[in-house]
Amino acid sequence: MRAVDLIAAKRAGRAHTEDEIRWLVSAYMRDDVPDYQISAWLMAVCWRGLTADETRALTLALADSGRRLDFKAFGRPVVDKHSTGGVGDKTTLVLVPMLAAAGVSVAKMSGRGLGHTGGTIDKLESIPGLSTSIDPDRFVAAVRDHGLAVAAQSPDLAPADGRLYALRDVTATVESIPLIASSVMSKKIATGAQAVVLDVKVGSGAFMKDLDSARALARAMVDLGRSSGVETVAVLTDMAIPLGAAIGNALEVREAVETLSGQGPADLLTVCCALGREVLVSARVDGTPHEAERRLTRTIDDGSARAALRRLVESMGGDVRCIDDPGRLPAAPHVSPLASSDEGYVTGVDALVCGEVAMRLGAGRATKQDAIDPAVGLVLRVKLGDRVTRGSALAEIHARSQPPVDLLDQLRGAFTLAPTPPSASPLILDVIR
Amino acid sequence: MRAVDLIAAKRAGRAHTEDEIRWLVSAYMRDDVPDYQISAWLMAVCWRGLTADETRALTLALADSGRRLDFKAFGRPVVDKHSTGGVGDKTTLVLVPMLAAAGVSVAKMSGRGLGHTGGTIDKLESIPGLSTSIDPDRFVAAVRDHGLAVAAQSPDLAPADGRLYALRDVTATVESIPLIASSVMSKKIATGAQAVVLDVKVGSGAFMKDLDSARALARAMVDLGRSSGVETVAVLTDMAIPLGAAIGNALEVREAVETLSGQGPADLLTVCCALGREVLVSARVDGTPHEAERRLTRTIDDGSARAALRRLVESMGGDVRCIDDPGRLPAAPHVSPLASSDEGYVTGVDALVCGEVAMRLGAGRATKQDAIDPAVGLVLRVKLGDRVTRGSALAEIHARSQPPVDLLDQLRGAFTLAPTPPSASPLILDVIR
Repeated sequence: MRAVDLIAAKRAGRAHTEDEIRWLVSAYMRDDVPDYQISAWLMAVCWRGLTADETRALTLALADSGRRLDFKAFGRPVVDKHSTGGVGDKTTLVLVPMLAAAGVSVAKMSGRGLGHTGGTIDKLESIPGLSTSIDPDRFVAAVRDHGLAVAAQSPDLAPADGRLYALRDVTATVESIPLIASSVMSKKIATGAQAVVLDVKVGSGAFMKDLDSARALARAMVDLGRSSGVETVAVLTDMAIPLGAAIGNALEVREAVETLSGQGPADLLTVCCALGREVLVSARVDGTPHEAERRLTRTIDDGSARAALRRLVESMGGDVRCIDDPGRLPAAPHVSPLASSDEGYVTGVDALVCGEVAMRLGAGRATKQDAIDPAVGLVLRVKLGDRVTRGSALAEIHARSQPPVDLLDQLRGAFTLAPTPPSASPLILDVIR
Repeated sequence: MRAVDLIAAKRAGRAHTEDEIRWLVSAYMRDDVPDYQISAWLMAVCWRGLTADETRALTLALADSGRRLDFKAFGRPVVDKHSTGGVGDKTTLVLVPMLAAAGVSVAKMSGRGLGHTGGTIDKLESIPGLSTSIDPDRFVAAVRDHGLAVAAQSPDLAPADGRLYALRDVTATVESIPLIASSVMSKKIATGAQAVVLDVKVGSGAFMKDLDSARALARAMVDLGRSSGVETVAVLTDMAIPLGAAIGNALEVREAVETLSGQGPADLLTVCCALGREVLVSARVDGTPHEAERRLTRTIDDGSARAALRRLVESMGGDVRCIDDPGRLPAAPHVSPLASSDEGYVTGVDALVCGEVAMRLGAGRATKQDAIDPAVGLVLRVKLGDRVTRGSALAEIHARSQPPVDLLDQLRGAFTLAPTPPSASPLILDVIR
């Protein structure tokens, strides 16, 4: 087989066989096929697409490029969740403890943030002492011993995906439904949970800007999971506005603790419950979504979910006093309000703009090499439908130093005010089973 | 500027500015942009195309990546020709001496053959002692002193095109009208002739399989030449069947010498005259194609064209006795006829199949590293419309050893026989001025 022939076939819109795709991935990993051929092939895939069969073959070839974990011997359900990434998205920090407290084990590997969306690993690492880099054996042991584990994506799992993703990132070939779906699901399949819930974000702050493409991505991922024996369900959630109020690493940990204490924003809890009930039903822990939701809300009411987060942080070497008292988390020296220059009802808060402002403050990274500042970020002070007057605070800016005027203007531009309140729009847009 | 942003823009179908294209080419040549980004960009170009402005910017950026020769000081017209490549295409060997004998100077840099199409350089090198590698200064001096020079493409001219072409070759991004047009014309512009005639081959044995895409390519190249001050004209010629009878390096030199002696195949002479009259009119040597054609046929009748070929071979260190007596050219030890297994009128001779068989015999190379055998190849013994009977010879096979049966079968498959003669089809399909 020759890579140039496979590129030419894909360029012409022809489908590859499973053998051809396996060959391409393994030849790439052996360095028999260079980056410049793979990047041309990736662009041809963005152009021509992959069939469902090709996507499945690619997913399995990526999953099989490294270790595949297996929790079946545990004799109890092990679940996983994945988010396609959004602004203010701290659902993992809330949902993982809730699920563990609800009686399932959770095995979650997570990425770092890039661009305007944050990553769970960066958020957890804002807790002093906490380390997210553990090898797969210790990860499996943590799931067994503590009932939950969150770790940085292991380079031993789906290494071909890691290499492919790095190449896609610099060749403008990230945006492709079959490539995104195979990348996500190869890692989920390699991680080995029996049931996975996918949080597919839709809107300005997400990679999927419209409902149709989000549905197509969700469908592709659910089918890939199912055909590999992983019970997979996808929940499409709105990301036109940020989730919750906090954007920034330590600020989001604080909001997660507040939510687990019953004092968090309603939208965040709604999304966590929607994801949680789907995965509990998928894992056959509960017969109906209603039962599952009752079980989940109980973990907030009785404090067991917050205790599970404490256990998770402890198992990772983090300072648990930050969970007991979030005031001990890293804090930014400059906290200033953003005053409204106008009056009206809040009808929009642009998630992408909020994410970009948080990144400018140092909460995110523009390139993989950038360091992030755990303390900085934003806290929104208004929700959709709130009435504001001139001078009232729209947000709090947590910064290393006095924020520049153009940053204030940029952030102010994220808020849309109108003379009449907005009509209500749903947070949970669809569930793809 | 960042390469990833330019790739993303092209992927989205947006046009680049001239500055962006110049930056991309120069950053590539400085190794600031790696192959894997360029190959993704090339595939995006195959997908989305380039506008006329982008194609011109790319062409000039490639031409300006190295030396640009200039013959203006000579005070007499210097012309060039280019063929998009075909099977049995020895027009350069015939036309260049005809033009030199007709009173213009010819400055022609040429490539090696790859795949089923031969290259002029390989054909010339079948003459013992002949060397085609000369530096640009000696090339200019040869044009000045001898009135004609044919040399292997200099790595000092349009080096960015050389690098880009090598990358396209292994990433299935060769077939793209703007990329082909800019590659050809960057080299022509850098070579510095005042007038260029392009022989755009159409048909099974050519890169352009249909007339519409050949016309589009011709139009793009003619416009590129004109806008850079090079008088450019393109002649579309048929390549459904091989040109002339000989396919293979020394065999084609022999046929070229026969043609210059007035004893060559009619189709070859027709194509050479069509190309020659267009470039003589473009260079303002003649006022009308009719005058130009008379001037050209005179060079055959009076032996001056054959003398010009002898002068060319001598200037390149080749054994001129091979021109005086082509029987001295390298000859294959095994010459066997291919007998027809059927009877009827010849209605087709597939140029692609003939080219592939010649390549199998050793006349061409599958990869750049392959050595070629100057002596081997085919000589067709029938023309379109000839009536053949069972057992009559369709072709002669010139081989190193007894050709295998499946090669004979493959070659026999190139010939289509029918009970009635074919209708006449034109050899010159169009002229794009």
